[in-house]
This record gives sequence, structure tokens and C-alpha cells, in this order.
Amino acid sequence: MRIRIGILGYGNLGRGVECAVRQNPDMELRAVFTRRDPENVKILTDTAKVCHIDEAENWQGELDVLILCGGSASDLPVQTPKYAGLFNVVDSFDTHARIPEHFAAVDAAAGKAGRTAVISVGWDPGMFSLNRMYAGAILPEGKDYTFWGRGVSQGHSDAVRRIKGVKDARQYTIPVETALASVRAGENPDLTTREKHTRECFVVLEEGADAAKVEEEIKTMPNYFADYDTTVHFISEEEMKRDHSRIPHGGFVLRSGVTGREKENHHLIEYSLKLDSNPEFTSSVLTAYARAAYRLSAEGVHGCKTVFDIAPAYLSPKSGEELRKTLL
Amino acid sequence: MRIRIGILGYGNLGRGVECAVRQNPDMELRAVFTRRDPENVKILTDTAKVCHIDEAENWQGELDVLILCGGSASDLPVQTPKYAGLFNVVDSFDTHARIPEHFAAVDAAAGKAGRTAVISVGWDPGMFSLNRMYAGAILPEGKDYTFWGRGVSQGHSDAVRRIKGVKDARQYTIPVETALASVRAGENPDLTTREKHTRECFVVLEEGADAAKVEEEIKTMPNYFADYDTTVHFISEEEMKRDHSRIPHGGFVLRSGVTGREKENHHLIEYSLKLDSNPEFTSSVLTAYARAAYRLSAEGVHGCKTVFDIAPAYLSPKSGEELRKTLL
Repeated sequence: MRIRIGILGYGNLGRGVECAVRQNPDMELRAVFTRRDPENVKILTDTAKVCHIDEAENWQGELDVLILCGGSASDLPVQTPKYAGLFNVVDSFDTHARIPEHFAAVDAAAGKAGRTAVISVGWDPGMFSLNRMYAGAILPEGKDYTFWGRGVSQGHSDAVRRIKGVKDARQYTIPVETALASVRAGENPDLTTREKHTRECFVVLEEGADAAKVEEEIKTMPNYFADYDTTVHFISEEEMKRDHSRIPHGGFVLRSGVTGREKENHHLIEYSLKLDSNPEFTSSVLTAYARAAYRLSAEGVHGCKTVFDIAPAYLSPKSGEELRKTLL
Repeated sequence: MRIRIGILGYGNLGRGVECAVRQNPDMELRAVFTRRDPENVKILTDTAKVCHIDEAENWQGELDVLILCGGSASDLPVQTPKYAGLFNVVDSFDTHARIPEHFAAVDAAAGKAGRTAVISVGWDPGMFSLNRMYAGAILPEGKDYTFWGRGVSQGHSDAVRRIKGVKDARQYTIPVETALASVRAGENPDLTTREKHTRECFVVLEEGADAAKVEEEIKTMPNYFADYDTTVHFISEEEMKRDHSRIPHGGFVLRSGVTGREKENHHLIEYSLKLDSNPEFTSSVLTAYARAAYRLSAEGVHGCKTVFDIAPAYLSPKSGEELRKTLL
């Protein structure tokens, strides 16, 4: 029997999960739950139903795992504890500072209901966190570095779009190559915010808007841009559509550490991602962890888990024997 | 109370474990077991004892984990099942093809004795295996690539040393840059053995040896060199000592895969290591997994495990709460 998946929220992430489920023959999509009118939501999977979100609770017993594809700002803090009381769930909650309270709320709900919840799954938090953890455990004396990009930051793009006179905008976060090179060379640099990343904005102006003023407003915006070297390009709507419609991202996690009698030997561990589609990659990680949630639940392991708590083999459709034979 | 560690075998790997234990404040080295006369073995740790290997079995109850630092060819196939019946153990068994039978033997012994054994820990098998597994679970449609080097291959160095007329030799395995670049570009190349790695040998000749003949013998040696482009350099004993006394290694694990409705989005996951000391890095991984073996044993999880079976958090001295707060 295949693992029966539900998707809650059908934006970029939900559509990505639908595609990922199609790539995993041991899973099948059963239902998509949406806040929109289900009549107006077209999905790819003929055999799955589109339902209004209010119907989700009637699906208990029909789904093995519900993958929550809402946003971290307002959806998941409410949805994950709620649905963890009804289903095994996986989410991609990514507000790093609020993970402890989210964990506590979800753990309480899932524990009480005897369900398995996996939170903060994706690449950061997610695969990047895992790599920081493994590398730190292996090289206790060392230094961590995380660089993001080159990729589109949705939050920064939105911030630029809110400026008066801006019709559309896309912001790319770019790691500074010389900083990366210094880390790779084992120089253990202390890097300021400005030294690690630059920001590049592509902006379509409203008719009659003042370009110089918009550029100034972007470059001096506190938190978002003031601490960075930012470049602003004004482009046409056609150029925006032609050159900036994808949502690429990626980044690098490095640990530079030492071992030996006199700490004389240097080691570098580097993990990197180069992603054409940030949401689709996140969806693929969510889908692999849905398999883990299903299996843990079947073993009676309930409550809230993160990527740190789950043995790697739970993610793979292969048996332990097969993994040892082919991948070890 | 600190985790009490024993080391069995005091070569490069055993010495590396001793150094690694010094970097982990929650552990202490209690004893080193050696086949040599203990009187002639000097270790770094004043508080640990040096004992003959035959005394090891008298240390039950005195050690939480015994880290086995012998070789994969003849030591570990005997030692790991034997000592898994007496202690929690960790080894770095790296003969990939024989892992299934080693696993079975160790699992039987550890299961019967109620001990926890972790085998094939290091970087390949080990961290590279983990990365192949995670990447394959996330991107089910894709292709794996593993490149090794630049680094010293002990097996190939030994093979050259066995040639008549060779006094000393060091062999470096080197990944082919253009092949790596093609994988990173998402071209999914089919690579032959020759296209993935080159081999470079530094050789000190015996007096009067025929350089041309030695070079010919190296380059045509079946399995070891015949399928590769090999470069041979003849150097002096002083140059060997000055330039080739370290044991660096490293490599790259890549997965190139696709997602999306039409498989239109490409993703690259890359993990790489650049190590000044191959044995010391392996030792550092063994030491982190010794912590996991200790904890699993305390939880009553017995039998044989590999890196696939162990949740990442078991490797870290940090609590779940601390990990979620600082690394997720």
C-alpha cells in the first residue's frame, strides 16, 4: 500500500509537493486542501480530490501524512499545532527565532493525539541545519559559515515592492566570492554582514516614478538593505518576465576546523546547493520527511521531531539491507 | 560522568582518536590496547593506561565504548564481532563489498550480548554515504557522482612500493576538473574510470634501479593504474620526506537531479571534504559516533548500526533544545 498524502495550501510549495509525490512511487496524493473555492483550483493529479480547507478534519483515517504548505508568518503557527492533533504532519516553518515555541506547541498537540509531526523541514532550516550539526559534532574545534545565494529572496523582493513608485521587483542575495574563498582557504575570517553578501535588485517602475529616489530608498532601508552593498537595476516589465520569472536559490554551509596533537591539521567540510526552484526543492525535502513521519508513526514514535531527531534511513524508500549494499 | 573510551590499535587511526577525545570534554580516554609490548608504546594521555590487547576483555564495565582502530583487511573482520560481544564498539570497516557480511557478523554478536555496535564509520564509508543517501531521498530522479582526492591512497602507494627497484612511493588520486565541472553544470555526463580521476606517483628509486622500467610497470599495473592516466615523478628521499609526509585526502559527493511538472528544474547537491589528515578526520567521525553508541546503548538500542540508522542528534554533545535553538 502506498503512503497516502494530503497537501494543505496550494501555492508554490503545495504545487512542488504534488510534483515531488509523482516522483516517489511509494506515495500517492489523495487530497489538496485550499482556502480558495475548490471549483477554481486545478491540480495535476487526476486521482486526487480538491477540497475546501474546512473539510480537512473529515479526512482522518484517509491520509497517512498531511504536508502543510502554508507560510511561516501567520499560517503555520496556527495550522501545525491544529492539524498535528488530527494527522501526522510535516511543515517547513522557517522563522528561526521562533522555532523553540513552535516546537513546544506542536509537540504538545501531537503528543496528546498520538501523532507524529516533523517541523522546520526544507534546506534552511533543514539540510543546512543538518550539515551544521554533523560538521560541528565531527570537528568540535572550528568555525561555521553559512552563505546564501545566488538566489531570490522573497522577503526582500516584497520589501522593494512596497516602495512607492515600484511596480514590480526581484531581489537576489549573492555571496561574496572573496569571503567564500577566504573560508575555503582556512583563514577563519571574521566577516561582517556587508562582507558576506551583496544584494542586487531588478525593479520595474510605475510610470512617472523617480528612479533616483527609489534607488535611494532601497539602499537605505534598515534591516533589509542598509547593512549591505546593494545594486539596483531598472528594467522593463518584459525584461522582468523574460529574465526573472524563476525562483532560484542555494547557498553554502562550511565548517573549518582543526585536529591533531598540536591542532596542526586543518579540515574543511562544505555542503552546497544550487537550486533552479527554491520552493520545489523545499517540497522535495518535505516529501522525503513525510515518508519518515509515516514510518515513525507506524513505530509508535509520536510528538514533534526535527531533522536532528530522525535517522537518515527513514527518508529513503530503500531497505536497510539495500542501503548498506548500494550506498554505504 | 564522562564517556569512558578505550582504543584498540594504536596506529594513525588510534592516535587520531586519542587526539579527538581530547577535543571532546564529555569524553575521557581510559585505555589503549596494543599488540606491541605496552612498555614501548608512549601515548599522549597521562591518565590513560596502555595495555596488551589480550587484557582488553578484563576491562568490561570499565569502558563505555571501545573504538576499534585496526585495518579492514584482516583486523576488523575478526575484532569487531569479537569485541562487540564484550563492549559497545565503533569501527571504520571500509571494504565496501564486504559490508553486508561484516554487518551480519557484528549484528549477531552485539545483539546476543546486548551491546551496541556502529560499523563503517568515517568519511567513505561514512559521511559520503550519508550524503549520497540524503541526496537520493530528496531528489529521486537524478544521478550520483563521487570523486576522491586530491589525496594519498595508501593502497596504491603500497602497490608501487612492491615494485622491484622502488624504495619508497606516494600515490595521489586526483579528480579530473573538467569532469567535476561538467557534473556541476548539470550535464549528467557518463564518465569512464579514466575520465573521473588521474593518478600521480612520487617514487624514490633504489640505487641502480631502471627508472623507465619502473614507470612502465606502474602505468600498466592492472586494477591499480592501467585504467587511469598516470604521471610518475622520481624524487629524492629528502624530497619525499619534505613534501610528502602528510596524509591529506578529500573528495566530492554530488547529486544532480530534476523536479517540477515537466522535470524542468535542475538542482545540484554537493558535499565536499578537504582534509589535511585523512586518518585524523576519520578518527574524529569515529569519536562522534562513539557518543552515539554510548547513548543508544543507554537507551537499550542494541545490535549493529550504521550511519544510516542513527539520528544526527546522537552525535552532538548539545541537548535537543540547544540544537533547535542554535543550529536549526
